Amino acid sequence: MQRYFIDQVVMTKEITIKDADYHHIKNVMRMEKDDLIEIVDLKGCLYLGRIVDLNNKQVIVAIEEELKENNEFDVEVTIALGLVNRNKTEEVLRRAVELGASKFLSVKLKRSVVKHIDDKLDRKEKIVKEAAEQSKRSKLMLIEETKSLKELIEYSKDYDLKICCYEDAEKNTNSLKKLLKEKYEKILVLTGPEGGFDEAEIEVLKANDFKMVSLGKRILRAETAPLAILAIIAYESEQS
Amino acid sequence: MQRYFIDQVVMTKEITIKDADYHHIKNVMRMEKDDLIEIVDLKGCLYLGRIVDLNNKQVIVAIEEELKENNEFDVEVTIALGLVNRNKTEEVLRRAVELGASKFLSVKLKRSVVKHIDDKLDRKEKIVKEAAEQSKRSKLMLIEETKSLKELIEYSKDYDLKICCYEDAEKNTNSLKKLLKEKYEKILVLTGPEGGFDEAEIEVLKANDFKMVSLGKRILRAETAPLAILAIIAYESEQS
Repeated sequence: MQRYFIDQVVMTKEITIKDADYHHIKNVMRMEKDDLIEIVDLKGCLYLGRIVDLNNKQVIVAIEEELKENNEFDVEVTIALGLVNRNKTEEVLRRAVELGASKFLSVKLKRSVVKHIDDKLDRKEKIVKEAAEQSKRSKLMLIEETKSLKELIEYSKDYDLKICCYEDAEKNTNSLKKLLKEKYEKILVLTGPEGGFDEAEIEVLKANDFKMVSLGKRILRAETAPLAILAIIAYESEQS
Repeated sequence: MQRYFIDQVVMTKEITIKDADYHHIKNVMRMEKDDLIEIVDLKGCLYLGRIVDLNNKQVIVAIEEELKENNEFDVEVTIALGLVNRNKTEEVLRRAVELGASKFLSVKLKRSVVKHIDDKLDRKEKIVKEAAEQSKRSKLMLIEETKSLKELIEYSKDYDLKICCYEDAEKNTNSLKKLLKEKYEKILVLTGPEGGFDEAEIEVLKANDFKMVSLGKRILRAETAPLAILAIIAYESEQS
């Protein structure tokens, strides 16, 4: 069933949907009166809704019942990605949502080929919302402002696990498997830009309690590493 | 260091590189005499090579030494993907190489929106070779012919673990974690097309010893599921 994240809190028996979701329901999904949809409201509550009216500007949905379903990790995972170009950033955004990340941010690092991307937050939020609806997330992933390494270090202080996916990590012998055996509330994962990390950056990260880990023997591209680590965290936290 | 897979066996102290790799060395990487490259030959042996001559049509490379490095899984993993369009297939090819797959094939399934993709093997092999060079694979991933479900079942007979990533697998209670605790020689992973699997297909697969597994609570897109399972297999087989 199609899911919609709405920017209101469900307080009444009927709600009104306008704008982009209205367009999607009417023109993309071509739904009709009595069709069922799932609604996630601003509080993260999930409802089953029935379309009772579809006119030229809005859809009226009757709330049938609240559904109990939670597709979120027990742990909050933030992906911090070395700044890459817009296409790659958007690809990671989409897949990070699918794979369960709570937050995303870009980090300006020395070897980033891209020095700046225009933070078109509207566009990014649209991507996040669509991916969340498709993948049946219960929450929207938050996009944080792009940070310098210094700002990231400051930001990372209230995380109880901070890992950095570093291709030369085999020498540094942090076993990801051992790290993920523990329980955490908030994990921050930093992955590099195309050019990888500068050694001085690695030293700063280590000094600030980032654990260097390897994602395997092969070199992963900048946009692949965040997906690999998210798949592994899902596996460790959701498979018994 | 840049790696090149060459279609010859290194038997002599010097080798000649032509065509696409010649172009890449000369015009893309702009290498010069005395620059070092890595060579993987048809036998899968890895060599350090030094460019001794670069003329208008070929590069002469002196083999300096054989390198001992193996970036392959201990287990052979074949990705069978429900037929999707060419863009998505190519994206999965690229990332499946990065993430360590041995073989790839497409499977025609009932709910595949795409009914046919032209098997431009040349183009696919070029993608695989470039991805293998970038990700420092020791072997090229093989591309098998597109198969029907019946042909896949026949093909799967000599695999010692066959898994199917099925979104409704939670009801079927195969723990991926328990399955991956065992040692295997050959694992076949089947993931669905955009429309998912048809229930009759699932019954046929179960009857043929495919284990249904879930990759987590969220719905993954057709091109994301193969990457997630490969990241997990790498994690289980390469992390101690």
